[in-house]
Amino acid sequence: MIPLQGGKTVPYYEQIYLYIREEIRTGKIRRGEKMPSTRQLAAKLGISRSTTQLAYDQLTAEGYLEARPCRGYYAADIDLPFSMEKAQEAPSGAEGRSAGEAFLREESEKDNIRNNHPEKAEKEKILIDFSPRGIDLSRFPFNTWRKLSREILQDENKSLFVSGSPRGEENLRQAICDYLQASRGIPCRPEQLVVGAGSEYLLMLLWQILGNRQVAMEDPTYRQASRVMQGLGHTVIPVAMDRYGMRADLLEESGAEMAYIMPSHQFPTGAVMSVARRAEILAWADKKEDRYIIEDDYDSEFRYRGRPIPALCGSDRLGRVIYLGTFSKAVAPAIRVSYMVLPERLSKRYDEVCGFYASTVSRVDQAVLARFMEEGYFERHLNRMRGIYRAKHDCLLASLESLRGDFHISGEMAGLHVLLKSKQNSEETLRHLAAEKGVRVYGLSSYFLKPEQSQTVILGYANLTEEEICRGVELLKEAWCR
Amino acid sequence: MIPLQGGKTVPYYEQIYLYIREEIRTGKIRRGEKMPSTRQLAAKLGISRSTTQLAYDQLTAEGYLEARPCRGYYAADIDLPFSMEKAQEAPSGAEGRSAGEAFLREESEKDNIRNNHPEKAEKEKILIDFSPRGIDLSRFPFNTWRKLSREILQDENKSLFVSGSPRGEENLRQAICDYLQASRGIPCRPEQLVVGAGSEYLLMLLWQILGNRQVAMEDPTYRQASRVMQGLGHTVIPVAMDRYGMRADLLEESGAEMAYIMPSHQFPTGAVMSVARRAEILAWADKKEDRYIIEDDYDSEFRYRGRPIPALCGSDRLGRVIYLGTFSKAVAPAIRVSYMVLPERLSKRYDEVCGFYASTVSRVDQAVLARFMEEGYFERHLNRMRGIYRAKHDCLLASLESLRGDFHISGEMAGLHVLLKSKQNSEETLRHLAAEKGVRVYGLSSYFLKPEQSQTVILGYANLTEEEICRGVELLKEAWCR
Repeated sequence: MIPLQGGKTVPYYEQIYLYIREEIRTGKIRRGEKMPSTRQLAAKLGISRSTTQLAYDQLTAEGYLEARPCRGYYAADIDLPFSMEKAQEAPSGAEGRSAGEAFLREESEKDNIRNNHPEKAEKEKILIDFSPRGIDLSRFPFNTWRKLSREILQDENKSLFVSGSPRGEENLRQAICDYLQASRGIPCRPEQLVVGAGSEYLLMLLWQILGNRQVAMEDPTYRQASRVMQGLGHTVIPVAMDRYGMRADLLEESGAEMAYIMPSHQFPTGAVMSVARRAEILAWADKKEDRYIIEDDYDSEFRYRGRPIPALCGSDRLGRVIYLGTFSKAVAPAIRVSYMVLPERLSKRYDEVCGFYASTVSRVDQAVLARFMEEGYFERHLNRMRGIYRAKHDCLLASLESLRGDFHISGEMAGLHVLLKSKQNSEETLRHLAAEKGVRVYGLSSYFLKPEQSQTVILGYANLTEEEICRGVELLKEAWCR
Repeated sequence: MIPLQGGKTVPYYEQIYLYIREEIRTGKIRRGEKMPSTRQLAAKLGISRSTTQLAYDQLTAEGYLEARPCRGYYAADIDLPFSMEKAQEAPSGAEGRSAGEAFLREESEKDNIRNNHPEKAEKEKILIDFSPRGIDLSRFPFNTWRKLSREILQDENKSLFVSGSPRGEENLRQAICDYLQASRGIPCRPEQLVVGAGSEYLLMLLWQILGNRQVAMEDPTYRQASRVMQGLGHTVIPVAMDRYGMRADLLEESGAEMAYIMPSHQFPTGAVMSVARRAEILAWADKKEDRYIIEDDYDSEFRYRGRPIPALCGSDRLGRVIYLGTFSKAVAPAIRVSYMVLPERLSKRYDEVCGFYASTVSRVDQAVLARFMEEGYFERHLNRMRGIYRAKHDCLLASLESLRGDFHISGEMAGLHVLLKSKQNSEETLRHLAAEKGVRVYGLSSYFLKPEQSQTVILGYANLTEEEICRGVELLKEAWCR
């Protein structure tokens, strides 16, 4: 059995997780093999069931285990260990609920834009806004930020106002590398990084080194990214997802030369790409020279149960993954700092094609952020925010409990929003009924690239207090369950 | 005669300038008419000759007068008033020294890049670096900046960290408009402005609304801009200049659909586009729907004699001029704030095509800069820097006096560098001889789009003290006049 070690260096659930993961990777637990139930395992190990449940949840989230309703947990049908050379016969996904089918769409793009950017007149009646774009700034460490800003302006003076390093300040890039290594499992060097004023700007730079491409995007997806890609001249090809993420078979069929994906926590569906699907997607990229994957890891910081989902980039041995990260969610949208990690050969190409571009982030801002990271404030802030968001998340899910008869809830466990799929009402009906009670919810349809009918609304909670969340859900119940 | 008014609201030289300009515009002084000499005019008006000289210099710089060696001043051959509907028969420029011929080139692009980005080994021997890219930050008002930053972070807190206005904060755009109106004669509204993290980024946005174009650029020009334009996919067509600026006849011949020009102070030649040439260039734009002019007004703040040269944009009645401004020279390169003023119809197109882009400048930086402008610090800083740069400029020109036998000096009176054209030596010889004495000067050749031989070097002085300037010129004399 699993040899657990006391002494608390590694929590029990993580020891179990690591042990089973290794057994599956090395084939000691065979594909499709039935696992003991969480109850049985807990009894055997003499620990609580919640601990084994946590380990199983993590393994399931990452795709090592599959939970079959009423039957228990099975080792997933993974052919190769995660270090992966080539992936075959991963779970087909055909059996999975198709996210693309599940989230249906009904409105025109124009309507959606209005939906997500409400007009003033409509906004005035709204008491509670479940915006998926907000973040909670009430706990932002203003005093620390102010203190660091003051120190930076005091200490450095003149040097901060002359032109800096085009790719971003060395110490900031180093701090980001350290963070990526420790928290996201990405082994990278500061020379691979480019810091820029927002992910959109980084996509413009990427376009300059990669040229116009056929880009596969998950459908639904983060619409802002698809607009940027199209605006630059890329051809965006929507590729449907199943519950494991973008379907690799459809990606191959699509003829795309690049894939833009959010493997750790897909927006808006909240899907986590399974380990097998990751292997398939990496294998897809390896099939042809010059295929690339853009991994947008926009909010991986916020996961409420178990360990963080590792970044795809950390498994990329072939230099195919371009990693995009941002401080918009983790710190604040208005500080306007994002970064990308380029594989070696693209990094060289960057120097040739874009090397002359000056950095778009002011040196003072870079210096403040670097010190914020170096002195441990960033980590503390993240831990604190994770706690705060977890509390809000739990509050929301508890409030939603009584809606489970009429709605399917998904996308929970991570990020800053959940999805509610109605069993009978259209998204539009749900939105209008909610608005009449002074509550704004967001239709999923606006995130689809291909028009789809939708019975799903999105509830973001980051920017609401727990009281507002409870009150909001009460109003939603009044609106929807008359 | 000119009715001068005492009381000092408007200085005498400016009253003279305005009076004569009006006479020329309205045709009361006829084209080609000989003007009284500065001495005669001074005697008649009972004022000093330096005052009339200043007025004549300004009129000459703007193209209303022409100075003919040994013969005096003549009203320029301008056909139409500056409010202009159509311009014809402006000075042909054929008689002028061709800037394109005057500044010759001999080195490969690679060598030029090395030239302007010297390798470490070479740099270590350099005592004095006449870089044209530096600015003087020793007088930067750090205390003010720090104080404003502190105030901003204290006062505003949370609101500064949520996403702001995509085009830039309203109060910053208003402050820029006020400045442009007062100092550059540009009547614009905040709704026409887009604030962005550097001119390069703004060019990327412009490319998105204008698409790939044939872009005429002055030759020589600011190479960074031409690299950006080419990187985006524009076709850059070099168009030669004469002393009045880009030649309008060659612009028409070039087939370009857009012109990128620096009318107030061309980089690197220092040429000021004459009023007649401005009319021709605007008339060129008006000939076809969808022709545009990008006016890069990168350092118009620094002019040492007379009034500032008005921006071309202020004369644009037809919505053809896109104005690009920056705080890189006027405040500091590392604050990374530039802006553009879009003509009405492009502003609409911007909203459609680029409206979804978030601002690339952090809100804190925008707030600090806005307050810096609103509270008069910017104007005071500019006035102070103008004084400091003028002193350095005068010191440099005085030191160079004894070189006038062997060199032609140009580009003086404005900006932060001058050009020295040798009567016998190549640029490369000049650079190498200077480097042997520990002085770095910059070859003009690296700024040419079409390879050209050059006997001209550039001396930037912004970042040097007056002592260093004197010492540097002493060393140059030793190097060049053995």
